[in-house]
Amino acid sequence: MPDQPRYTVGVDFGTLSGRAVVVRVPDGAELGSAVHDYKHAVLTEALPDGTPLGPDWALQVPSDYLDVLKHAVPAAVQAAGIDPADVVGIGTDFTACTMVPTLDDGTPLSELPEWVSRPHAYVKLWKHHAAQPQADRINALAAARGEAWLPRYGGLISSEWEFAKALQILEEDPQAYAAMTRWVEAADWIVWQLTGSYVRNACTAGYKGIRQDGAYPSADFLGALNPGFADFVGDKLDQPIGELGQKAGVLSGEAAAWTGLPAGIAVAVGNVDAHVTSAAARALDPGQMVAIMGTSTCHVMNGDEIREVPGMCGVVDGGIVAGLYGYEAGQSGVGDIFGHYVDRLGPEWTHAELTERAATQRPGQHGLIALDWHNGNRSVLVDHELSGLLIGETLATRPEDVYRALIEATAFGTRKIVETFSEAGVPVREFIAAGGLLKNRLLMQIYADVLNMPLSVIGSDQGPALGSAIHAATAAGCFPDVRTAAESMGRVERAVYQPDPAAAAVYDELYAEYSALHDYFGRGGSKVMRRLRAIQRKAWDHR
Amino acid sequence: MPDQPRYTVGVDFGTLSGRAVVVRVPDGAELGSAVHDYKHAVLTEALPDGTPLGPDWALQVPSDYLDVLKHAVPAAVQAAGIDPADVVGIGTDFTACTMVPTLDDGTPLSELPEWVSRPHAYVKLWKHHAAQPQADRINALAAARGEAWLPRYGGLISSEWEFAKALQILEEDPQAYAAMTRWVEAADWIVWQLTGSYVRNACTAGYKGIRQDGAYPSADFLGALNPGFADFVGDKLDQPIGELGQKAGVLSGEAAAWTGLPAGIAVAVGNVDAHVTSAAARALDPGQMVAIMGTSTCHVMNGDEIREVPGMCGVVDGGIVAGLYGYEAGQSGVGDIFGHYVDRLGPEWTHAELTERAATQRPGQHGLIALDWHNGNRSVLVDHELSGLLIGETLATRPEDVYRALIEATAFGTRKIVETFSEAGVPVREFIAAGGLLKNRLLMQIYADVLNMPLSVIGSDQGPALGSAIHAATAAGCFPDVRTAAESMGRVERAVYQPDPAAAAVYDELYAEYSALHDYFGRGGSKVMRRLRAIQRKAWDHR
Repeated sequence: MPDQPRYTVGVDFGTLSGRAVVVRVPDGAELGSAVHDYKHAVLTEALPDGTPLGPDWALQVPSDYLDVLKHAVPAAVQAAGIDPADVVGIGTDFTACTMVPTLDDGTPLSELPEWVSRPHAYVKLWKHHAAQPQADRINALAAARGEAWLPRYGGLISSEWEFAKALQILEEDPQAYAAMTRWVEAADWIVWQLTGSYVRNACTAGYKGIRQDGAYPSADFLGALNPGFADFVGDKLDQPIGELGQKAGVLSGEAAAWTGLPAGIAVAVGNVDAHVTSAAARALDPGQMVAIMGTSTCHVMNGDEIREVPGMCGVVDGGIVAGLYGYEAGQSGVGDIFGHYVDRLGPEWTHAELTERAATQRPGQHGLIALDWHNGNRSVLVDHELSGLLIGETLATRPEDVYRALIEATAFGTRKIVETFSEAGVPVREFIAAGGLLKNRLLMQIYADVLNMPLSVIGSDQGPALGSAIHAATAAGCFPDVRTAAESMGRVERAVYQPDPAAAAVYDELYAEYSALHDYFGRGGSKVMRRLRAIQRKAWDHR
Repeated sequence: MPDQPRYTVGVDFGTLSGRAVVVRVPDGAELGSAVHDYKHAVLTEALPDGTPLGPDWALQVPSDYLDVLKHAVPAAVQAAGIDPADVVGIGTDFTACTMVPTLDDGTPLSELPEWVSRPHAYVKLWKHHAAQPQADRINALAAARGEAWLPRYGGLISSEWEFAKALQILEEDPQAYAAMTRWVEAADWIVWQLTGSYVRNACTAGYKGIRQDGAYPSADFLGALNPGFADFVGDKLDQPIGELGQKAGVLSGEAAAWTGLPAGIAVAVGNVDAHVTSAAARALDPGQMVAIMGTSTCHVMNGDEIREVPGMCGVVDGGIVAGLYGYEAGQSGVGDIFGHYVDRLGPEWTHAELTERAATQRPGQHGLIALDWHNGNRSVLVDHELSGLLIGETLATRPEDVYRALIEATAFGTRKIVETFSEAGVPVREFIAAGGLLKNRLLMQIYADVLNMPLSVIGSDQGPALGSAIHAATAAGCFPDVRTAAESMGRVERAVYQPDPAAAAVYDELYAEYSALHDYFGRGGSKVMRRLRAIQRKAWDHR
């Protein structure tokens, strides 16, 4: 007689929609899934009532997240054809750093009638970039004071993160700042809605909240930024930490009604889309680097020891899995660069056509080399003033030549990150690819040849949701820890792409060119990219 | 009672067709014109009988040139509605260096039945590039021996010119070399056909034939290249020189029958399309630089003194007009670069649309800078291993941004030439534009702003043919010299485009960036472009 069937639900909250997947314990089979689009998508021009927003703003409406629970979760359960009573846990992952200003009970400020017309009352999405002046001041002051936490973030705190965004509220809408008694990661806010209690997850607290060695930036430091900011941590941010894969609480009656799942089942501590994918790819051991490759690429990897890797996004104790140091790095433009190129070619060109043509070439045949900085450089240069470069065009250059060169440039960018980790004493022993670009076999082979490493690939195209379901199974007690759960429920195909030695040799030559250009334009040999930005801004100002 | 009407005919022999124009003396009014396409166009794959050609070959069939005399000239006279008896002279200009191997009487070798299947018996068009190995040896030996003529050509003899092409024949088809008793510029061959006598023009003899201070490269030098080449000049090349605008002879009875013009009228000494345009633009004084701007750009200018300008194509005594030193420089890709870019964008984009959109921008607004080396660099770097470069692309870059940046890059390339001349003691006092790109007003304004000089423009869109007609009028004795004829019959609008001071200031900043990149990639800071070519060739070889 078989065991009682058990399932968990993973919910992945993306930028424009949320996806729920029903997964079987213990084998990780994905039985059904459903997607629900956010009604308000991303607010960049105006609030729902028409109040205009400034440049670089990006807001969301928190009730859109609840709608995912109300629609996508029941739909996924129905698609899976299971009895919801057999669901033993739910886990979630979220974009980050996405922040919700709330009252003490978790009510978002934007849901109060008196705040509906105030932009600073809304969720600040990860790509809200209007806090750059605040981030610049945080970085300058931290560098001047030699704050010990700064090297843990490759020397630079992003304008996307918790402190810069909060400081912007204080300085632009002090009333909103005073009214928000809690400043909550959306990853934790959604868990709060599911359980009724607020647990702060170790991942975003570390990567986005500058929590290192159990402490946040000091009141002394924060007060020096702005006297009104001195007590920010104690007043609005600090909260007990939940480790990843722990149970944050149990599903409340209200949330059970939304989702159709049984009240009282385990709800896992919140998590981030990239980081949770490591579990789905069974890549939690030190030296297993997971690259989630899509419009941009996020690299996550565990290490035994804490090291300062130049240009990484951050290193956090337990940031990917409890007991290890989680490292994160990233490339700010990958699929976006290919998409931008194809969009300009006109409708007769597609990714498929360009890929097919580019695949007939030998490495080096197009005579081109590019730098993949069209959206700046996140790692290892951490400089968003950088821009794209293409060398070698002639009158014989064809669209597929440039397309291939752009793919290669992103592969060189990945190799730069891999080598930087290894040189800093955090060797990359296996490279596991995940994300939407997996389906481009030419791209994957180029990455294998450029890295001169076999490439493993995740065995799911719903990696984040599967990862959340694995965390849910752990939180529900089906496994002793996330690593054991991942071994049982995660899926990876090892060494699917093998490097071709001849291609790797040519790419070694081209990578030497890439590295020389990378350092010349990215490390001060020529600051032409910065100057072009300055000239550009001046020209816009004079319009 | 009005004077007896007088007219001259100018015939411009281009790469694919010849154009005849009937012009009135003394006011230069263009009364009628006609074009005739060459039946065989350019032979690049095979001879007319199917004999295959190697890579980089480009041949023509001499009878196609005579067909222009037989069809375009009578058609132009008819279109003008004049009495052919009132035509007093004919002048011609030609592509260069385009070479005809002939017998002593001017019969092209390719017209003899026993030679019709031999590629080396045909006309070698200017863009025949298969003599590069010979050119490389000429340059290496001349540099090693310190030949005095080498600096007159910016330090490099082109594979397109008379010596490299002749040496290729000697070494690849010695029988053809032995059979051709004369090695004739097409510019002179066509005059030979019109008059029955062979006069070598001062222009091509200097620029393409390495004739300096009355002498050619020595037998000693040529013998060191190849013992069989020692007597080349005396055997096949040397011929009395005709100054530009002189009468080479009179129209023969046979040529009168072809053209419908009166026998006995003056035929001007042969000339080159770019150089003859200076007369059409009334730009023959020292310091007046004429830029013939089309798929590529040719710059010609007179000077009082002979100077060695780094990277120029050549300086020739009487090379543009008798009594002055004629300087030539060039940009090997201009309109071709814009065309290549537009061709890849797809059918919904046109030059007109891109220009209209680019025209709404302020200088610097697109944040881009490019190097205009997609077809190599003719002046001032003289390096065809160089290639294109584009810096500053982001995900927000639009097609019109790149289009404008490419226009600006060619303008910066022109400024580099202008400044190099001025720094070498041959100041550019006026910049006069001619050629097909004149019709793009945005491009012209950008050139004015980048050069920070007023731009004059030629008053004819048939500049070369008008220039030939001016030379014909001089040869016919209507004027004492070409300069007087040009003042009467040429047309220029002075200072049509005025530089905008604000734009010029921004372009000074961008030109500083262009110059830094120009020197870094073109003068040895980084040899990445050469290495990319080498990697590319290796990849092709391994196919």
